[in-house]
Amino acid sequence: MFGPYHGRMNTPASALLLVNQRAYKMPAQPTVVVCVDGCEPDYLAQAVAAGRMPWLQRTLADGVALRADCALPSFTNPNNLSIVTGVPPEVHGISGNYFLDRTSGQAVMMNDPQWLRCPTLLAEASRAGLVVAVVTAKDKLRTLLGHGLQGICFSAECADAARLATHGIADVLDLVGRPLPSVYSAELSEFVFAAGVRLMQTRRPDLMYLSTTDYVQHKHAPGTPQANDFYAMLDGYMAQLEALGCVIALTADHGMHAKTRMDGTPQVIYLTDWLHDFLQRDDARVILPITDPYVVHHGALGSFATLYLPADVSANAVCEALRQEPGIDSALPRDLAAGTLQLPADRIGDVVVLADRFTVLGTTPAAHDLSGLDAPLRSHGGRGEQTVPLIVNRPAPLLDRKRRWRNFDVFDVALNYAQ
Amino acid sequence: MFGPYHGRMNTPASALLLVNQRAYKMPAQPTVVVCVDGCEPDYLAQAVAAGRMPWLQRTLADGVALRADCALPSFTNPNNLSIVTGVPPEVHGISGNYFLDRTSGQAVMMNDPQWLRCPTLLAEASRAGLVVAVVTAKDKLRTLLGHGLQGICFSAECADAARLATHGIADVLDLVGRPLPSVYSAELSEFVFAAGVRLMQTRRPDLMYLSTTDYVQHKHAPGTPQANDFYAMLDGYMAQLEALGCVIALTADHGMHAKTRMDGTPQVIYLTDWLHDFLQRDDARVILPITDPYVVHHGALGSFATLYLPADVSANAVCEALRQEPGIDSALPRDLAAGTLQLPADRIGDVVVLADRFTVLGTTPAAHDLSGLDAPLRSHGGRGEQTVPLIVNRPAPLLDRKRRWRNFDVFDVALNYAQ
Repeated sequence: MFGPYHGRMNTPASALLLVNQRAYKMPAQPTVVVCVDGCEPDYLAQAVAAGRMPWLQRTLADGVALRADCALPSFTNPNNLSIVTGVPPEVHGISGNYFLDRTSGQAVMMNDPQWLRCPTLLAEASRAGLVVAVVTAKDKLRTLLGHGLQGICFSAECADAARLATHGIADVLDLVGRPLPSVYSAELSEFVFAAGVRLMQTRRPDLMYLSTTDYVQHKHAPGTPQANDFYAMLDGYMAQLEALGCVIALTADHGMHAKTRMDGTPQVIYLTDWLHDFLQRDDARVILPITDPYVVHHGALGSFATLYLPADVSANAVCEALRQEPGIDSALPRDLAAGTLQLPADRIGDVVVLADRFTVLGTTPAAHDLSGLDAPLRSHGGRGEQTVPLIVNRPAPLLDRKRRWRNFDVFDVALNYAQ
Repeated sequence: MFGPYHGRMNTPASALLLVNQRAYKMPAQPTVVVCVDGCEPDYLAQAVAAGRMPWLQRTLADGVALRADCALPSFTNPNNLSIVTGVPPEVHGISGNYFLDRTSGQAVMMNDPQWLRCPTLLAEASRAGLVVAVVTAKDKLRTLLGHGLQGICFSAECADAARLATHGIADVLDLVGRPLPSVYSAELSEFVFAAGVRLMQTRRPDLMYLSTTDYVQHKHAPGTPQANDFYAMLDGYMAQLEALGCVIALTADHGMHAKTRMDGTPQVIYLTDWLHDFLQRDDARVILPITDPYVVHHGALGSFATLYLPADVSANAVCEALRQEPGIDSALPRDLAAGTLQLPADRIGDVVVLADRFTVLGTTPAAHDLSGLDAPLRSHGGRGEQTVPLIVNRPAPLLDRKRRWRNFDVFDVALNYAQ
């Protein structure tokens, strides 16, 4: 699908960066793309209405203010990779944190670049001679986002481990002037923004990608004091980047919804148990691609799952039965799921299951430690969390406001349309 | 569609009430159906999780705890009438507050019983000899809900105007022991509950219907202190009714969502202006069936509209163009809308328009007074606000939990399934 050449086209009239069959103009000013993890658009609306985001209020009036659809599953890794490649998971291959290797029967973690099927725009820009910097909240994303990148790439989580040879930078804590944050904190995201501002002040990268964590969004609804405090903090850093002359484009990996029964407890469909009851056998496997080493704030419960069925079990029969279950948004056999949801057919199971806006999917009750949940569950993964902001602090009069924008169009909008 | 006989079937074995082709058992205990206006299920989840609804927490554990779909449009009058008739607007005829009389060109208000096309369960129960009481928050619903009723029927708004001859009761303020509430207040709904408890203590009706107002829900999101206070108040009255031996069934007319741009201002598609631009003429009419005399809290902005087009304009062409607009969930020509959304074809226009969960529909900016909005707009009317609670304080082991329940099944569940 991809030609042999990626990178800068040095034509006299215009220098274009060609990545994954998309063309990008070279940045005229430093361009910062921010992925605000879990940023359901209502977080912004409530914080602006409360007077907590003066930068954003000006930006929405003067710049680009679109809602866009994220890639499915509405999870962090697939969407961060879509944003930095400009293509859906069908092309880049990262369909979640895990898939099942049928040969070995092992769940395989996809946070290693070997699973990435195309170059990132960040890597290609660095190969074309641009100064590129990436700061991510959690270290799990760093190796994927930094793949092939000749530049700066580190996580807030392991900021103290950044070395020149491996991360393109050292002494990050000194640079940022903040202590190493806890992985479960609002400060982890604040560290990303603070680092971005210090990098822009000291290195002035041509392209910078900042990616936060949704610790706050998993716990606090739009308009709550804690959410508004987070977005006020974000707003202040964006204003600093703007004062430094940056084009800023802001989007999100996914939205966020309360996922509870009416009694406030998590609304879970346990699919391993369901399959046991339906099939009367135990050799089907459930993969929850939200699962990762950091599950305290959501207990590995999201609204997307994929099922690996024994060869003699009909995927259509399983789908049909699942669709009768209250809380199931859709259940699709592999090819239909791959085709309609833009997923890589070889990294999903025989069935893809999406839960509705109230519901999450689990394996068995014993496999989910919910003891860390100190507030009603909020999570994501399905279509209900697909709408995200797509905001740029520059006008873009040539933009077609009626087309379906995707969060992975954000570099296109920032580099090709922003004026 | 309806046979000549409605009412009690006095058979020796079982007394059944037949209304609109549905059969209901006679209440063995006093049965109270509560319609909590604008009760998005998350209001309950957050209030229970905050420890503010001990009655509901017990009830959800021991009784019926379903989510159900309301009728469309997800507005107050169509759904209150669906609940008390057991049928969708297609049958009872009340498709909103207004429709357009094409002959006169006038918008006709549908709050008069002449527009109601079938009897209510409340009226038929009273004809069958049951003691029936209805308390509604706003007076606009009273005449519709009370149509044909031989019993008590009054509104909190005009509680001081209740007379024995016309309302089946007098001296309501003395009975309730509370002052006449403001029409824009949480107290208007509290008066409904307080009156319900006093009626149960003093008259012990066989059937009671209580219907509140969504003043709080239009202003305050789930989990906010104001919302939790409202639901704590509700919980206390439900506990009192339960202590009086009542079967209590709780549902809602519709949900509620924030309907704002990312800057916190209302996200409105002005359809009169849109039709002017698209058709280049001004003889199409937009009817917003949410419009009523009480619009301070939503400015007559909801997510449902119906368009009356000149005879030479293609409804399909208008629908196709509308579907391209960001924020439009669906645009359907009359027959398709009537058939799929269960609407009365002669009380909708040539096109039915539904907006998405972020968006409301208006006519022109000048026609909507938004000066009363002191918080980011929250509203309803579309499919995004269709999910509502269906809760009963009794177990119902024979209930099929997998079927699609509707809010207008609430009397069926309460009378036929609750044990």
